[in-house]
Amino acid sequence: MKNTIPKETISRLFTYFRSLLCFSKLGKKNVSSYEISKLCNINPAIIRKDFSYFGDFGTKGVGYDVDNLIDEIRGILKLDPAAKVALVGVGNIGKALMSYPSFESEGFKIFMAFDNDKKKIGVKVHGITVEDIDNLEKRIKSENIKIGILTVPEAAAHEIAKRMARAGVKAILSFAPCQIVMTENIEVTCIDLSTELSKLAYYSYKNLE
Amino acid sequence: MKNTIPKETISRLFTYFRSLLCFSKLGKKNVSSYEISKLCNINPAIIRKDFSYFGDFGTKGVGYDVDNLIDEIRGILKLDPAAKVALVGVGNIGKALMSYPSFESEGFKIFMAFDNDKKKIGVKVHGITVEDIDNLEKRIKSENIKIGILTVPEAAAHEIAKRMARAGVKAILSFAPCQIVMTENIEVTCIDLSTELSKLAYYSYKNLE
Repeated sequence: MKNTIPKETISRLFTYFRSLLCFSKLGKKNVSSYEISKLCNINPAIIRKDFSYFGDFGTKGVGYDVDNLIDEIRGILKLDPAAKVALVGVGNIGKALMSYPSFESEGFKIFMAFDNDKKKIGVKVHGITVEDIDNLEKRIKSENIKIGILTVPEAAAHEIAKRMARAGVKAILSFAPCQIVMTENIEVTCIDLSTELSKLAYYSYKNLE
Repeated sequence: MKNTIPKETISRLFTYFRSLLCFSKLGKKNVSSYEISKLCNINPAIIRKDFSYFGDFGTKGVGYDVDNLIDEIRGILKLDPAAKVALVGVGNIGKALMSYPSFESEGFKIFMAFDNDKKKIGVKVHGITVEDIDNLEKRIKSENIKIGILTVPEAAAHEIAKRMARAGVKAILSFAPCQIVMTENIEVTCIDLSTELSKLAYYSYKNLE
């Protein structure tokens, strides 16, 4: 592998990986950069350049070996098949994620779930017993969990994110409708569904003009 | 308002709007660009420049009037308080979105929901009667719906997106774990939860190194 792979390439590798899984499910053995391009909406020349960072697996006229490429990218992205995740906030979105099929098929296991609602604590949801939020730090530390999902109301999001961080979590996926800014060395991705819908609405009106 | 507002500014306006709603809920009457900056993670100079596109509402030493700014941005982004949305795929994620409180508080109303599962059709979910997917085009046209949410499995996503487009939908928010590329003049945002989690996992390992 050539030295370091640029951050933009890394980001695109996730998109390629996703599309390669699609091709694999469709039973395709080989794909061209053009076919990947169609699915990913990325220029074929960029795709070929990205793949060249870890050696050239393509064969002229045949294309890339789908399974080989999946294994290579999985290795580069360190897609750990046993990554454990802690979820906080067992509301409707939280429950839906606890049974989200493609998490498990991608190697993520929601391993524990917390809530502060006494009526939810102790209840089994999709095979996981909801735990008391008061035990968050202790439990995350004891299981050495590095990834958290936040599905709590906006008002609680910041505090819970900080508590996760103190317990050793290094990456958080938040669905709270607000930005979470962490000072620690932690990756946070905020999926703000209302804002996404607002943006779409704006462009849907533009498209009518 | 000065001529056209750049696309990057429009995109940031959604983020400002979100943070201003947070400030408003906290009871703040005025905010500085520095305070907005802290919440949005955007440089204060960029914020001031962005606001200058639609006139300068800030007062030195006092800051920006929160409610005034919310109204201004709402107007620019044409945040229609009655935007109707059609949802397809009443699984766990679909159901969770049908009761997602911040959609309604932001002016979105999931107005109809479709599924192809005979057991689900006719059942009321969070006040909405699930309709037969066969009636998708007819119903979307009759209600003149422009925004769709796709919470169907990957295999069905492309076909349903195309059917929505033919019925007049101009913007789609998709949760299917695949890219959707539309040839029509339609905005599509794909929220691929597994890929987001994979990216976070990658950076969480990097942060441990």
